[in-house]
Amino acid sequence: MSKPRNDTLLRALMRQPTPYTPIWLMRQAGRYLPEYNQTRARAGDFLALCRSPDLATEVTLQPLARFRLDAAIVFSDILTIPDAMGLGLYFAEGEGPKFERPLREEWEIRDLRAPDPYSHLSYVLDAVSQVRRALDNSVPLIGFSGSPFTLACYMIEGEGGTEFARVKRMLYQRPDLLHALLRVNAQAVSAYLNAQIESGAQAVMIFDTWGGALSHRGYAEFSLRYTEQVLSELKHEHAGERVPAIMFTKGGGAWLEQISASGCDAVGLDWSVSLAAARAQVGSRVALQGNLDPAVLLTEPEVVRREAARVLDDFGAGSGHVFNLGHGISQHTPPENVAALVEAVREMSPRYH
Amino acid sequence: MSKPRNDTLLRALMRQPTPYTPIWLMRQAGRYLPEYNQTRARAGDFLALCRSPDLATEVTLQPLARFRLDAAIVFSDILTIPDAMGLGLYFAEGEGPKFERPLREEWEIRDLRAPDPYSHLSYVLDAVSQVRRALDNSVPLIGFSGSPFTLACYMIEGEGGTEFARVKRMLYQRPDLLHALLRVNAQAVSAYLNAQIESGAQAVMIFDTWGGALSHRGYAEFSLRYTEQVLSELKHEHAGERVPAIMFTKGGGAWLEQISASGCDAVGLDWSVSLAAARAQVGSRVALQGNLDPAVLLTEPEVVRREAARVLDDFGAGSGHVFNLGHGISQHTPPENVAALVEAVREMSPRYH
Repeated sequence: MSKPRNDTLLRALMRQPTPYTPIWLMRQAGRYLPEYNQTRARAGDFLALCRSPDLATEVTLQPLARFRLDAAIVFSDILTIPDAMGLGLYFAEGEGPKFERPLREEWEIRDLRAPDPYSHLSYVLDAVSQVRRALDNSVPLIGFSGSPFTLACYMIEGEGGTEFARVKRMLYQRPDLLHALLRVNAQAVSAYLNAQIESGAQAVMIFDTWGGALSHRGYAEFSLRYTEQVLSELKHEHAGERVPAIMFTKGGGAWLEQISASGCDAVGLDWSVSLAAARAQVGSRVALQGNLDPAVLLTEPEVVRREAARVLDDFGAGSGHVFNLGHGISQHTPPENVAALVEAVREMSPRYH
Repeated sequence: MSKPRNDTLLRALMRQPTPYTPIWLMRQAGRYLPEYNQTRARAGDFLALCRSPDLATEVTLQPLARFRLDAAIVFSDILTIPDAMGLGLYFAEGEGPKFERPLREEWEIRDLRAPDPYSHLSYVLDAVSQVRRALDNSVPLIGFSGSPFTLACYMIEGEGGTEFARVKRMLYQRPDLLHALLRVNAQAVSAYLNAQIESGAQAVMIFDTWGGALSHRGYAEFSLRYTEQVLSELKHEHAGERVPAIMFTKGGGAWLEQISASGCDAVGLDWSVSLAAARAQVGSRVALQGNLDPAVLLTEPEVVRREAARVLDDFGAGSGHVFNLGHGISQHTPPENVAALVEAVREMSPRYH
């Protein structure tokens, strides 16, 4: 295992000079691609697709075959850990992920243990190694996990949402119990990400999808603190190479200062934040990843090009920018708009370097 | 018409000294109150309740009879304007507001006119005057409207949501058309708020519920700009008294600087923002309203008290704070927790003044 021939992403994440701005897209292997839908139909459903290293490898590579992307991200779900803990992940048609057995009793939380990724999540690790072999050192492979708090949201509520009444009630009334759960989740996430690194992931990303639902105070105490713990336990080097870590809190624009001091190499930003303002605030400490509004990809190539130029211009000249969306790509995205985006960034970004 | 005997809210909104921190709660007349549900059942449904000045007055006063609140807010909906434009507001059971005839064609937008509030929204103005009479100058009455952009979201999508694919497509592909719609909305909102002021509203609030879904750039161009237009056309004085304006953008924590320069007297904050940080940033220019997480009210009086103390402490000593939630009160809130909150703020806040 050695450095990928195209190491633009890794260099940008470490704020080293690159000839252009690297680009990859959250959820780049997904339902907007007809070939993805075909493979998924062959698998039966989304979870069967995640659990088959062969098929997961296939869909991971699909967007790279179409577009000149600078990274692959292993096809998986942010909720594999609670599923491995026995909570029973499932997807109801047309809805988000749910758990059959959400945590309802104190003893259920007290009994929870971090799963050994090598025995309970080997299907993800197998997919990671298989994708690495298939990539043949062309571009780097990103591994990922949900954050301890985001996992806890789904584990307690049984599903995602916007209110989080159960989680918040626990947070305010039984913070000790929520902390107990978050400690286990943090152990589980760091063990899981380290196993992905051992299996070949060359960068890792932590998705804190629901951290933005917390108060400024709650975010520091119940989300950031445990992500920091994960980051402190990560293998930041493997096989002689630095493994950069990206942290993304959707809706976390007001907390950039704290996030950038968490021990990550790069911070993912949604589109509510100006890259220029974020760079002025924390750009000397971390790289920035983002932040095109995914709705731009619902328009037409000309508009995509104009808006991509605005994002590049917002960050400005210099290293430390990874182009991405501010959220996962919409399933209604026409693939030709993604092609236009990737080409626009490749064509227009060199002048900033 | 003269100054209310309890003018604490008005003074705080103008950053004048007050003996304690005034408190009111977004959606304080609502489904968490059994007496509200009884009146609503008598009305038939939510819209019938809004449209009856007698019943709207009744529910506006209900929370004031129970709790020592420092303001009343007229019972109405943020979407009365597009309803008056003929789009057909309705509420499907268990869902948010929807429109029967959302704007789908260019000519529908080009044909749109700002409704005269005195002929098409007289039921709201009647409720405002009737509530003022019933209040008998005890506490001030707040009038309100949705922001031009938030109205546009519902008018184009036909409902609320989180993706706003249609609005965003228009924003990126046909900004001219969205601007045309927003110009009409801004005229409508300022005429509507001015009519509420003429009818007796002593402060007004603009709810920008969906502005937070925009990019930093889109927010400035498509939301803030039109709210600024509304603010510039408002009657800031009526019957010899200053009528302060509060602006609330849910999820707008990253744009405080711009919002505070918009011409409003006070900025509403959700719970993601620290009041101390916001005050340091813009507190010399505007008052701040907020920002307890409404989920705190789902717990128990002791927790409510502790968290209320934290909010007061976060703002710190001095004038210019109006205590409120960071979002509307949840229908699952036990009224005794609201009682505990209002008493806690009244009891604990004098030491900060």
